[in-house]
Amino acid sequence: MRQFVVVAHELDPAADVSLEDLPGTGRLDLLCRCVGAAVFLSHGIRESVRVHLVVDDAYTVRFDADRLRHLHPDERNVAARIRDALAAREDAIGHQPADVSPGVEIYRMGFSETVDRLAREGAVVQLHEDGTPLAAETPPADPVFVLSDHRDFTADERGTLADVAERRVRLGPKTLHADHAITVAHNWLDTDGYASY
Amino acid sequence: MRQFVVVAHELDPAADVSLEDLPGTGRLDLLCRCVGAAVFLSHGIRESVRVHLVVDDAYTVRFDADRLRHLHPDERNVAARIRDALAAREDAIGHQPADVSPGVEIYRMGFSETVDRLAREGAVVQLHEDGTPLAAETPPADPVFVLSDHRDFTADERGTLADVAERRVRLGPKTLHADHAITVAHNWLDTDGYASY
Repeated sequence: MRQFVVVAHELDPAADVSLEDLPGTGRLDLLCRCVGAAVFLSHGIRESVRVHLVVDDAYTVRFDADRLRHLHPDERNVAARIRDALAAREDAIGHQPADVSPGVEIYRMGFSETVDRLAREGAVVQLHEDGTPLAAETPPADPVFVLSDHRDFTADERGTLADVAERRVRLGPKTLHADHAITVAHNWLDTDGYASY
Repeated sequence: MRQFVVVAHELDPAADVSLEDLPGTGRLDLLCRCVGAAVFLSHGIRESVRVHLVVDDAYTVRFDADRLRHLHPDERNVAARIRDALAAREDAIGHQPADVSPGVEIYRMGFSETVDRLAREGAVVQLHEDGTPLAAETPPADPVFVLSDHRDFTADERGTLADVAERRVRLGPKTLHADHAITVAHNWLDTDGYASY
């Protein structure tokens, strides 16, 4: 299983999501591209991938690629799923998620709860400018990549990551958008660390 | 200079572009993400990058990263530029492009004319399932990556590429969307072939 956590710092869970203005809705455009980068191949959906969008440190919207149906890679289509998930947030009680559509759920969990939980399922990998070059690392079996949106991680988030991250990796000399970082990570995993093509 | 050619097989240059339905407009969503993957870094625009969208084998919309202004990475924003470029297509005469907005031009050139011209500016790299593994190649100085949208290259396009491509590379065992392929190519170039982080 490959998992990706993306932290949305500016998306209000109660936002009136406008599909005509995704950037103005907490940079929902970027989050949608992250979901797309994580779950889509050229003519299908990847297997064994989950994306967790942490919203306002209060809710986590989960996309499970194995159960997704009728999802298309355009931002507007993905955004509608996120909108519907946020609209169902009051139905998420305790650790019981609210079901939104096949493969999409929303949990009442913030950043540290989501990441701590995933750390029990795989190896948390933090993208960090002082990390090991990606090409020098061996891909873990069940990686959990943790990324931030257009904002940096907060001090609290960095503290949580310092506790749970098994590895810190560096993707290259340029700072990439989170969705592009997901694509680079997938390619590294697909090729077993640039060894198998 | 890094250049990316993306062939749009289903986008009608005379289409009444709907920003509310980019997938239904010749998969304009995918083309927009290709432009974004090519020109954007996390907090800025890359230098020395051009993207060429070949539309209907008749027109080529060119984005020149060094001259772009006020472009945002969301699909809708990029789509508006492509829409405006297509609307100006009748002003492109001979080899004189029509200026659309800073850094965006449209040329009256189809696939082979665009690719032949770019082959004089750099090394044409074709993505191909029988190509050399990317990690085994040395990055060329001025690569021109040629990619297709959700459709395969036509027989004619494959013929043109067979004539001009200096290299054929394989990005991995999975077939990626064109925008994801651009991100992988950029990361390979950024790291000087996975050597410099």
